[in-house]
Amino acid sequence: MNFTLNILGTASALPTVNRYPSAQVLDVRGRLFLIDCGEGVQMQIRRQRLSILKIDTIFITHLHGDHTFGIYGLLSTMSMLGRTAPLHIYAPEAFGKILSDFMASFGDGFRFEPVHHTVSAREPVKIFETRSLEVLAFPLRHRIETYGYLFREKTPMQNVRKDAIARFGLGLAEIGTLKRGEDVHREDGTVILNSEAAYKPYEPRSFAYCGDTAPFPELSGWVKGVDLLYHEATFPREYESLARATFHSTTLQAATCAKDAGVRKLVAGHYSSRFPDISFYLDEMKEIFPETVLGKEGMKIEIPFVSNPC
Amino acid sequence: MNFTLNILGTASALPTVNRYPSAQVLDVRGRLFLIDCGEGVQMQIRRQRLSILKIDTIFITHLHGDHTFGIYGLLSTMSMLGRTAPLHIYAPEAFGKILSDFMASFGDGFRFEPVHHTVSAREPVKIFETRSLEVLAFPLRHRIETYGYLFREKTPMQNVRKDAIARFGLGLAEIGTLKRGEDVHREDGTVILNSEAAYKPYEPRSFAYCGDTAPFPELSGWVKGVDLLYHEATFPREYESLARATFHSTTLQAATCAKDAGVRKLVAGHYSSRFPDISFYLDEMKEIFPETVLGKEGMKIEIPFVSNPC
Repeated sequence: MNFTLNILGTASALPTVNRYPSAQVLDVRGRLFLIDCGEGVQMQIRRQRLSILKIDTIFITHLHGDHTFGIYGLLSTMSMLGRTAPLHIYAPEAFGKILSDFMASFGDGFRFEPVHHTVSAREPVKIFETRSLEVLAFPLRHRIETYGYLFREKTPMQNVRKDAIARFGLGLAEIGTLKRGEDVHREDGTVILNSEAAYKPYEPRSFAYCGDTAPFPELSGWVKGVDLLYHEATFPREYESLARATFHSTTLQAATCAKDAGVRKLVAGHYSSRFPDISFYLDEMKEIFPETVLGKEGMKIEIPFVSNPC
Repeated sequence: MNFTLNILGTASALPTVNRYPSAQVLDVRGRLFLIDCGEGVQMQIRRQRLSILKIDTIFITHLHGDHTFGIYGLLSTMSMLGRTAPLHIYAPEAFGKILSDFMASFGDGFRFEPVHHTVSAREPVKIFETRSLEVLAFPLRHRIETYGYLFREKTPMQNVRKDAIARFGLGLAEIGTLKRGEDVHREDGTVILNSEAAYKPYEPRSFAYCGDTAPFPELSGWVKGVDLLYHEATFPREYESLARATFHSTTLQAATCAKDAGVRKLVAGHYSSRFPDISFYLDEMKEIFPETVLGKEGMKIEIPFVSNPC
């Protein structure tokens, strides 16, 4: 029942010898969701001991090369490894041409179909779901069309307390009502509160990916209360004017978003290549939001599965 | 006056955690020639402490992804680093569409022009030259159109021995004749042999890049006597049938080409991902051609400048 973020790349536009371009894999109960696809992502997936063939779905934030150029090698390798299942790729509209150009030049012999789903959103919209997970896209504020993604487990059906069944003499329909999280309203006017008779079996977990973006007021509301927030922090605090000019965020702005959103934990990335040592980024961010970590290639961040006692 | 080969990638189709896709940089007296352009090449160039902005010209053997996918990130990074000089890329015809597709999707803001020169050759033909170097392309035998490249320093003008000027009473025209490497034929019938009066100031150096290819008889003649031969050795000796089916070479075939060509040194690469440890490749190759090294990421092979004493 894992919910684990794998950091594959923390570079911004220019990679360095140690920092790969943007890419992360969210492992939700064994299904792997790749977010952004910087050059070298296929090697980073291997280094992280993840399986390329288990990549389920890809979400691309925007079509700058440092978030995209790894798609070519990844798709080719999937083909060589024998993938036959369609691969669903959520990305802005212009990705359609990039993908069809690629397939025209390099797609000979592919035995699977990469399927582009156009992302378009002016506020958070659900673009993908499984039985237990849903993914929302929301617009970010960058130089070109860019989306963030919110991954959250669906609210599970509630468990009805065994002692409550006898105590309230619950019928089958009433148990169904409680499982859906609702109160029971009986014909005689009595109300059985959900909180008295049922409980959530576990806490649904959530992760939001915000990058690349300049800060804007709505964002913290859109990622409110997530367990883990990735927010780009390209520049240190004192480079705010450069951040503004390039539609990026500073350490301060990323940490402020995390604080305003009341998230549990913040992980930073997309560091400017001007700064080979970014340890001072952490100090700047922790001043605002203490639960910050600096993302690093190879890092895994597990969001624990918390089951509730009955 | 260096002539140094830098190995950036030795993987075949599937990269591994340690092996990057095909790419090498030949540094000829400070001008950097990139041969093949596998994914991650821009990071490998940095790791090798070479300058991305000093890449002078690119030669691509063929349009399989493991020799090509690094071009996207490399060109983008060159643009971000401020390149303005045109970048000349020698590659098979189909590269034209790949490049124009790329520029259409990602070329906004480029301040330099990547220029594609179509390579087409049925036997060795000169495709590029500088004052001191020439590059020949020759066809290889692979699943798609593929070319090898031979880099060789031009034969330098000869030096005329000082003592010979007095001894033979050489005139200016005669000195010119000797400098061009010719004998002097005087009107009185006497002949001044070039070898008696002049000498090459240094030995011109040469490197040939042969991959990907199945073995074929003409190849050793085309790379005859080079100082350094890169020849792909995808498979070990006993995988000859797989090599044949995929138009690749075995260790034995690569070493035999080096032996037949009488080269000074052979460097292998493009190893199958089936073999994480390829040390046994070396044993197999050295049996046929002792002056073999296994190429490895980060390796530099210097061909020394040998000046002749007068």
